[in-house]
Amino acid sequence: MKIIGTAAPRVDGVEKVTGRAKYTGDMIVPGMLEGKFLRSPYAHARIVNIETSAAQAMPGVVAVLIGKDLTGFDPYIGRGKRKDRPLMAIDRVVYAGEPVAAVAAVDNRTAQAALDAIIVEYEERPAVISIAEALADGAPQLHSFAQKNICFQDELIKGDVQAGFAAADDIVEDTFEFPMVYHYSMEPHTSIAKEDDQGITVWSSNSHPFGVRKEIAEIFDLPLSRVRVLIPFVGGAYGSKSGSKIEPLVVALARRAGRPVRVRTGVAEAMMTVRRHSAICKVKTGFKKDGTLTAKEAEVFLNTGAFAETGPIVTGRTLTRILGPYRIPNIKVTSYCIYTNTVSAASFRSIGGPQTAWATESQMDIIAAKLGMDPLALRRKNLLRKGEELKPKGNPLDADLFKGLDEVAKAMEWDGPTTHDGGGRGVAFGVTDPGAPLASTSTVHVLADGSVVLLTGTVELGQGSKTVMSQIVAEELSVPLQRVTVRAIDTDFTPFDRSTGSSRSTTVMGKAVLLAARDARRQLVELAAEHFEAPPDAITLNNGGASAGGKEITYGEMIHRHFAMQGGELIGTGYAHSGMAPTPSNPLFWEIGIGAVEARVDRETGEISVEKYISAADVGKALNPPQCEGQDEGAVMMGIGHTFYESVVYEGGQIVNDSMLEYQVPNFKDLPARFEAILIEDGNGPGPYGAKGMGEGGIIPVAPAVANAVAWSTGARIKELPLTPERVWSALRKIHQG
Amino acid sequence: MKIIGTAAPRVDGVEKVTGRAKYTGDMIVPGMLEGKFLRSPYAHARIVNIETSAAQAMPGVVAVLIGKDLTGFDPYIGRGKRKDRPLMAIDRVVYAGEPVAAVAAVDNRTAQAALDAIIVEYEERPAVISIAEALADGAPQLHSFAQKNICFQDELIKGDVQAGFAAADDIVEDTFEFPMVYHYSMEPHTSIAKEDDQGITVWSSNSHPFGVRKEIAEIFDLPLSRVRVLIPFVGGAYGSKSGSKIEPLVVALARRAGRPVRVRTGVAEAMMTVRRHSAICKVKTGFKKDGTLTAKEAEVFLNTGAFAETGPIVTGRTLTRILGPYRIPNIKVTSYCIYTNTVSAASFRSIGGPQTAWATESQMDIIAAKLGMDPLALRRKNLLRKGEELKPKGNPLDADLFKGLDEVAKAMEWDGPTTHDGGGRGVAFGVTDPGAPLASTSTVHVLADGSVVLLTGTVELGQGSKTVMSQIVAEELSVPLQRVTVRAIDTDFTPFDRSTGSSRSTTVMGKAVLLAARDARRQLVELAAEHFEAPPDAITLNNGGASAGGKEITYGEMIHRHFAMQGGELIGTGYAHSGMAPTPSNPLFWEIGIGAVEARVDRETGEISVEKYISAADVGKALNPPQCEGQDEGAVMMGIGHTFYESVVYEGGQIVNDSMLEYQVPNFKDLPARFEAILIEDGNGPGPYGAKGMGEGGIIPVAPAVANAVAWSTGARIKELPLTPERVWSALRKIHQG
Repeated sequence: MKIIGTAAPRVDGVEKVTGRAKYTGDMIVPGMLEGKFLRSPYAHARIVNIETSAAQAMPGVVAVLIGKDLTGFDPYIGRGKRKDRPLMAIDRVVYAGEPVAAVAAVDNRTAQAALDAIIVEYEERPAVISIAEALADGAPQLHSFAQKNICFQDELIKGDVQAGFAAADDIVEDTFEFPMVYHYSMEPHTSIAKEDDQGITVWSSNSHPFGVRKEIAEIFDLPLSRVRVLIPFVGGAYGSKSGSKIEPLVVALARRAGRPVRVRTGVAEAMMTVRRHSAICKVKTGFKKDGTLTAKEAEVFLNTGAFAETGPIVTGRTLTRILGPYRIPNIKVTSYCIYTNTVSAASFRSIGGPQTAWATESQMDIIAAKLGMDPLALRRKNLLRKGEELKPKGNPLDADLFKGLDEVAKAMEWDGPTTHDGGGRGVAFGVTDPGAPLASTSTVHVLADGSVVLLTGTVELGQGSKTVMSQIVAEELSVPLQRVTVRAIDTDFTPFDRSTGSSRSTTVMGKAVLLAARDARRQLVELAAEHFEAPPDAITLNNGGASAGGKEITYGEMIHRHFAMQGGELIGTGYAHSGMAPTPSNPLFWEIGIGAVEARVDRETGEISVEKYISAADVGKALNPPQCEGQDEGAVMMGIGHTFYESVVYEGGQIVNDSMLEYQVPNFKDLPARFEAILIEDGNGPGPYGAKGMGEGGIIPVAPAVANAVAWSTGARIKELPLTPERVWSALRKIHQG
Repeated sequence: MKIIGTAAPRVDGVEKVTGRAKYTGDMIVPGMLEGKFLRSPYAHARIVNIETSAAQAMPGVVAVLIGKDLTGFDPYIGRGKRKDRPLMAIDRVVYAGEPVAAVAAVDNRTAQAALDAIIVEYEERPAVISIAEALADGAPQLHSFAQKNICFQDELIKGDVQAGFAAADDIVEDTFEFPMVYHYSMEPHTSIAKEDDQGITVWSSNSHPFGVRKEIAEIFDLPLSRVRVLIPFVGGAYGSKSGSKIEPLVVALARRAGRPVRVRTGVAEAMMTVRRHSAICKVKTGFKKDGTLTAKEAEVFLNTGAFAETGPIVTGRTLTRILGPYRIPNIKVTSYCIYTNTVSAASFRSIGGPQTAWATESQMDIIAAKLGMDPLALRRKNLLRKGEELKPKGNPLDADLFKGLDEVAKAMEWDGPTTHDGGGRGVAFGVTDPGAPLASTSTVHVLADGSVVLLTGTVELGQGSKTVMSQIVAEELSVPLQRVTVRAIDTDFTPFDRSTGSSRSTTVMGKAVLLAARDARRQLVELAAEHFEAPPDAITLNNGGASAGGKEITYGEMIHRHFAMQGGELIGTGYAHSGMAPTPSNPLFWEIGIGAVEARVDRETGEISVEKYISAADVGKALNPPQCEGQDEGAVMMGIGHTFYESVVYEGGQIVNDSMLEYQVPNFKDLPARFEAILIEDGNGPGPYGAKGMGEGGIIPVAPAVANAVAWSTGARIKELPLTPERVWSALRKIHQG
């Protein structure tokens, strides 16, 4: 292979680094108004009255929209199993930050002035912010259909967990807490909407263009063909832009205004739009003296906020994620998705992964410490082998975890969980089924000058998809990479793709792109066979041309001839569909991340320094190794964020750290002193050339690996994130006092 | 068939009649400037100097472009066999109206003021306007490479024309003149251009989006994939928008301005952009006493204006068109394409058709009159039979002309060329090879809610292509017509099409659309067979659903299931390519129009009134009969224009009738008192369901049919168009005087 496996440069790199790339917020749609949302200051309240007349009378204000105006269409949206979210508050608010009014005006200043002139009369109600508050007896209920604020619950049972505990030599029982985390995409939520005879058009910073199309079509009762979603450059997503967020409300506002409307949010508003689930995991594990696990019982509580969103899906996913990659004969896991009066939680890089691994992988080292075993030895004792079933039934593991662990241990120069000079070492696994949905379609077009166009619905979020997809096309068609152009996404033209997320793009869309390119290649070979009057297997394609028997012809010339010297185009089509998975219930692939850390704790301040971080990702095949490394390192750095700093803090029902000054994310100074990403390439993936998803595995192990290192180094076992110096210092102090 | 052959309403009708349809001139591109061209007042001059500093200094003027600024790219363009047209005048002007400077400014007023401030110093040169002037000894030469101002010439020889004349009992020799005619599309030329990192984008009112893409790519040296052409609604074309007209200059202006530029022209400027070839046809025909033709010798002179454009193609086409649909054993035709200092002539509904038929079909009645034969009888004597070769070699006729003539005669109640009350009757054929190029590609997309999207590069010019293409898709996919959406053209996404013209769209693109729809249908049947576990031939598709064994499922549901319940899309692909024609040199089809007229002449005023007009078109299969009738009636009315009124008049090198007040086109009062379009459906076309092109045939016979009726009624044979009352009156006077 000439292009696959190489460090092909980013095809969208120059536009991005020169600042010429146009994001949704840079778009200007003729006649466009600026829209703004007025948001509830209360976490839970009845809306008694909204007085909009002063705002409406302001010069330059074109439309004011409030909940009672949401008529003529279905004002509720729901991506999970509950359709519980109105486009904006209708007669009550259920979280602080919920939009209660929207204004479209000629400019932002006027829109803001109009918001300021809207008077909302609220009748405050008691709110529940934490899981404990939500589950308390007599707690206020968010939704009438959800008993005890339980949005969704599910359980997983295998064997007999009581018998398993009875057979154990020892049992540990711990509770772990994981905070609310904000995605912090560089670009917050921004959308433009317009409606005309053709239907509804939305420009948006979103990673699910076809999901947004479907939701808008459902809400506003239009066929899919009459809703158009265009995706300009996107500045990061990490799950925050999976499915409709502000889009339906912007559409409703544009409809009311009778003109296009643009809404650009900032960080504070984005934090009021979506976040990661905070979680409490209660885990009880039984084990033999030799370390063999006998039983695991767990309760997982996810704080899903005001609306279900993808909460039920995340909840379902925690059932297996809490198990880790270990052989456990007896299991009982119950997971609860809990409504609270907070911002809705939804998808976030590895849904339910970091929360559950935080518990399971921390507890593995608690067990190792109890047994006096090396934590790697304990893991090796229980680690599933390739082909073993990870879930109770089916779903065999597709990777050799021992090999990965050995590579990590070697790179870490592991000789035990403590270093000779008092540092600690920790390791953790992230083994998850990302649940990559199987539905991607793509077309590859070879034009009459031999240039190649790829239509793919995968959104370039910064992950490098445009580059990788171009590489696949260039490789399959035997053309130079520069000859391939990937079109921006416009659902009026771009073939369907389920979504960009779930680590699916290279694997699933990549497959559709591969098949489309091969379909185009087949046609090129047919044309060449016709031209050279040679059998297809005598044709060689190379560098944009075909040859046979020592004669050559360019693709462009062949196409031109085939189409009677009048130009022309060859179109290859590729689908990735249900036939791609072995069985419907099996995951397409397991995503494997392994993290190992060497850390040191300043016992004066409680500050942890990461001396070394080794991350290993089972990528199947690295189509572009530097991009894979970048993905994995980025995932680790994002894990460093929630490990050390990140937590959306609520006080009195309000987010109190809703700016980038108060909500700290990692930066360059947080890079581990030594930082290595290992790519394991076993060709074991179902994607092109054996590739598999790898964008999420790296984030999962960070927190437990660091906490384990801290525990081995200091004896302090911390079960709540983030590992702030204060929290570490307190834990150290408790040990010394105890 | 349920939808083909029905009077399906125009799918774009509501938007057009409500005025909500957006044409190029309605488009606003953010940051767009308004562009205007300064045009030469001289027909032929050297440009001594252009002083632009005052214009450039004006506030609001962003760019001034003159010929010497056309650097860094190839400033010449040529669609025919000569690449002779600069984007704008470089150091000389060769026709009055040629752009010599272009300005981009913040608004039109400023742009106009800047034009007014540009001082051009010309050194006038002698100009040639007419064919006679151009061919005269010592005439000024337009292009150094063109001896005697002959841009192109070609000849057709069959048999021995001298022997043919020797064998004749009588010979007639006549010279016919056909005027310059303006297309008068309701919408003049309008384009917007911008350039950015992606390449060049052009919005234009053009019927050759892919032709414009290719020309822009060639001029500015970009791959096809980096030039994007978008076609909003178009208000008519008739050949005037075939290939680049103002587009390359608008691109050059936008590049110089560094911002998008829009140029909207009016009627006067459109008349300075393109027109139909005026022609002089000298025809000598030998015949036997019984009417059998023995020989034909003809010289055709086309006034092609300042640049070749498609002139050479038009010239080549006249070689056969001058023959008419008659059996002539000995032929010698020579056609000349002549440069003059006038606006370039190019494609116009039936290139070279009306000019040559004007000669040939007039002369047939001159012969009939000489022989005292009924003109229908003379024609029947010489008419080619279906399958007979029309050109010297190959190209068998695909229609039964006798049947068509009989139908027309019957509808006309023909009992001779004069009516009982002194009126006259005339008939004429239009039998041409429209030269439909074979290169169209299309995709049909079935979405997960069963809605259907068609991507086709055929431009809806008002001819109804969107409706007909929708009908083909709906018929093939067994869905209601309303479920099909045809996307606007965007060459970044729309699959390649050669052009909209040459009567090719229903036949050639229709075939590609049919094949794309059948490809999608095949996939639907496969999905249904899989779903019902039934053989494909047990599947019935109907009304958007599949059924087998009494069970039903919608397309949407099938697609949804196939793509793992995650949405999805089926994509059908269709190509029309060289394989569609029997042999490369054969025309894809013959386009047949027959016109018969009954007219009366006011001998006081010379005014002709058309009492009855019967037009017959051999359509193969009328996919939408009212649209076919509309096309044919529209063609006849356009013919009525050049028959009675239309002529671009030059005086002193200038067009003197460059407004709609002075250049008269037909209107409702010109409708024949009785007007009938007969559709002959023999299923003999190579297009979908046996269809063939029929948009051009109707215009050809009008002028000779009317002139023949006038001659039979009055004895006055007029050989020059238009048949103005003055010209008819003069002819009548000459008879009475003679």
